[in-house]
Amino acid sequence: MQSGLSKKQLEQFERIFYPRSIAVAGASTDQRKMGYQWVAGLLSAGYKGVVYPVNPGGGEIMNLKIYPRLTDIPGPVDLVICCIPRTRVLGLLDDCAAKQIGAIYFFTAGFRETGDPEWIAVEEEMARRARKGSFRIIGPNCIGISCPEQGIPYGPSPLVNKIGSAGFISQSGGHAGKMAAISLTRGIGFSKVASIGNCCDLGAADFLEYMAWDPKTGMVGMYLEGPRDSARLIQVMRGATQRKPVFVWKGGRTAAGARAASSHTGALAASPSVWSGALHQAGAVEVNGLDEMADALLLYQSVGRLERANPGIICGLTDGGGGEAVLSADACAGQGIEVIPFTEKTRRELLGVLGQVGSVLVNPVDVSQRSGNLQAFEKAIEIVAADSDVDLIAVYENVDLLIAFLGRALADGMNEIVATAGGKYGKPVIVVSPPGTLDRERLEVESRFSEAGIPVFPSMERAARAIANVRQHCRMHPG
Amino acid sequence: MQSGLSKKQLEQFERIFYPRSIAVAGASTDQRKMGYQWVAGLLSAGYKGVVYPVNPGGGEIMNLKIYPRLTDIPGPVDLVICCIPRTRVLGLLDDCAAKQIGAIYFFTAGFRETGDPEWIAVEEEMARRARKGSFRIIGPNCIGISCPEQGIPYGPSPLVNKIGSAGFISQSGGHAGKMAAISLTRGIGFSKVASIGNCCDLGAADFLEYMAWDPKTGMVGMYLEGPRDSARLIQVMRGATQRKPVFVWKGGRTAAGARAASSHTGALAASPSVWSGALHQAGAVEVNGLDEMADALLLYQSVGRLERANPGIICGLTDGGGGEAVLSADACAGQGIEVIPFTEKTRRELLGVLGQVGSVLVNPVDVSQRSGNLQAFEKAIEIVAADSDVDLIAVYENVDLLIAFLGRALADGMNEIVATAGGKYGKPVIVVSPPGTLDRERLEVESRFSEAGIPVFPSMERAARAIANVRQHCRMHPG
Repeated sequence: MQSGLSKKQLEQFERIFYPRSIAVAGASTDQRKMGYQWVAGLLSAGYKGVVYPVNPGGGEIMNLKIYPRLTDIPGPVDLVICCIPRTRVLGLLDDCAAKQIGAIYFFTAGFRETGDPEWIAVEEEMARRARKGSFRIIGPNCIGISCPEQGIPYGPSPLVNKIGSAGFISQSGGHAGKMAAISLTRGIGFSKVASIGNCCDLGAADFLEYMAWDPKTGMVGMYLEGPRDSARLIQVMRGATQRKPVFVWKGGRTAAGARAASSHTGALAASPSVWSGALHQAGAVEVNGLDEMADALLLYQSVGRLERANPGIICGLTDGGGGEAVLSADACAGQGIEVIPFTEKTRRELLGVLGQVGSVLVNPVDVSQRSGNLQAFEKAIEIVAADSDVDLIAVYENVDLLIAFLGRALADGMNEIVATAGGKYGKPVIVVSPPGTLDRERLEVESRFSEAGIPVFPSMERAARAIANVRQHCRMHPG
Repeated sequence: MQSGLSKKQLEQFERIFYPRSIAVAGASTDQRKMGYQWVAGLLSAGYKGVVYPVNPGGGEIMNLKIYPRLTDIPGPVDLVICCIPRTRVLGLLDDCAAKQIGAIYFFTAGFRETGDPEWIAVEEEMARRARKGSFRIIGPNCIGISCPEQGIPYGPSPLVNKIGSAGFISQSGGHAGKMAAISLTRGIGFSKVASIGNCCDLGAADFLEYMAWDPKTGMVGMYLEGPRDSARLIQVMRGATQRKPVFVWKGGRTAAGARAASSHTGALAASPSVWSGALHQAGAVEVNGLDEMADALLLYQSVGRLERANPGIICGLTDGGGGEAVLSADACAGQGIEVIPFTEKTRRELLGVLGQVGSVLVNPVDVSQRSGNLQAFEKAIEIVAADSDVDLIAVYENVDLLIAFLGRALADGMNEIVATAGGKYGKPVIVVSPPGTLDRERLEVESRFSEAGIPVFPSMERAARAIANVRQHCRMHPG
């Protein structure tokens, strides 16, 4: 696949995301400290390479020897995680050069984002030393990278995301962390995650360029406040969106948000309409917030491109299907997703299975008349899936009601039918399952669907929004 | 308090919501059947009156004698719950008249909503017999009423909502049920809930009239599709909104939704703008969806009227505060909630407590620089609360990060500070706590805040929307 990346740049990124060894500068034997948690996180997460803790005080962490200096490490070091105080970073960078590392990321903060000329100058000196030493800097003021395939967790944590096709690039370490947490629950798989911080060296455009090329990355999500390399970013994005969807959440779109962004990442305010216009021109899909981002990544990961997306909606798995039908239709139509009435044939067949009393048969269909009848439920899904106007099957499941009215065993039986429906009828299946009282059971159900490759959304509105976002990419970039 | 309700009507409603006895017609000894679950639900929920199961087959349920006929019951019966087949309801209504009951509600469905002239006629005959017998009908095709104060759960369930000031009237039994479930988790307290079904006798306007009068009800939520008494409803609403907020979610606002609504409740399509206009004229606040409804009820229940609502926002309880600050400011501003920069004095004081490095101090304030320092955290809240432009304190809490970085004990300490802040500084406190991996811990935290009267929202956007909705009521009805 063609790319603007040179062979050398590619090698640099491979050393970042697939490092054979990681040194943690500022490692600590004190379990309460970040310098301990970074090391412990890598080990617990099952990182596939070698971990070298570094601290002048020496000692051991989890049976690993702590090296006094980076240059004391016997083997080669691809990646350095730095959590030492900002006053000592320049000395460390000289050691990085001597050690011929690939890259370093700075959890350490307190540079450009302070607005203090002294620390801005230090940040600029950091970039200079990296260039001179032929290695790259991520950050400072960032959480760094994650690569689940390589067993590298996001941040000082033992939790590694599912391996998958989503890439994520974030100007907020917190948002990337929250995304990692959400993804664990919702089963979103990641190829690579990068919290890019102040971008004194590698910037948003660089990471996007790499992820656009990366065969393991099938789509990219970005959280941006106001990247310093915005002109190049938009140019890179134009190429990236030809290959895969790029979903962008722009923080600081309001005056109040821009004020906060300026203290956070030193982002310059640009009017939201200018950003929206540029993103649209670059072929990206703009989303609003982390949940909408997660929803879009989850849907695209599960169902891929949607050339058409007329949903056939199934409601009322036990009761309450009337209100669910109205809500579902309103939610879809409100997001511009057409809910086309079923064909005459479909309706006739549904009537045969469900009977008339109290039934909503037009699309959505309310199947509650045959509540608890697995055969009727499966048949109804089959009929909806066979409708020529239906591209996508959406099942609205109220877990509270399902378990309260039918019990766990019958509920499991119905979920099994939904979980296997996608493969059976050749049309993608999505599930909407809103929170209620039985949240543990709901999460169990969600995780079972997730294993079956079926995305679960907490509301029909969010599902419809995700469909609209994936459709927008497909419309802008016809397959 | 003045009301259009006659003394007789008031007595009728008191017999509905505070019945001394409830008969369940169609009670069953088969635990899998609704006729069993209605009886068991009332008993398990601790209903304060007497329960009489009724079924021609006789027998016992949970040591209660089953009476063959309603007229066999020795004592007086205020309320009847009916879950017998539709073919036998007319006979039951004659027994209701003979027994001089107060009201009956029909879980039984299959009448007007089928569009079948035969069953529409039966529904009309039901209303006639009720009028002749001087009792009231709720439904048919409904779940009926709930009154937590009286120990009456919503539907055939042992779960009773928290006692509180919210009233809820719904044309969808399912939505009212989902609201009851959501409320259990989120700590929304209810005075009365009514699922009104086909409204062959009592309609939305009647229930609103009663709840507007009811001193125990401080606000009313309504889910409407297309009530048959809409003209009177709007008129009653005009009076009700003078006394308390009325939040209305109108289902069937889109063509697809209206189509589903017409099958569900036989609602006639009216353009959404006509409805929106009428609701606005009547002084009600229109909300979009159950979550937005729940958020508005929760906020108003917790903080009451908001004459001004400039939030002072506290982010970054451990880390990630920069992105949270941008997100929070954008979310508020996006919903029309101004985020006013802190006064010079506030900023100076925050700088003193938090220090400069990496800090966002303008509003939102990012307190992560002193992560884990309880004194500094408490002081920061105190300083924000003392700002003359701050009307409301909003704390953004990422439970995953808090527990991962600080551990449970320190996290609990911080939550204790937040939980007591409202009482200490005389300004309302709200918390935003988005879902992540530690959902059990998050729900525990939510429930602790809920006990302290602090509303918790899953996103800043939803919190801001709730503030905007409560503000809209206050603007339309100055205190």
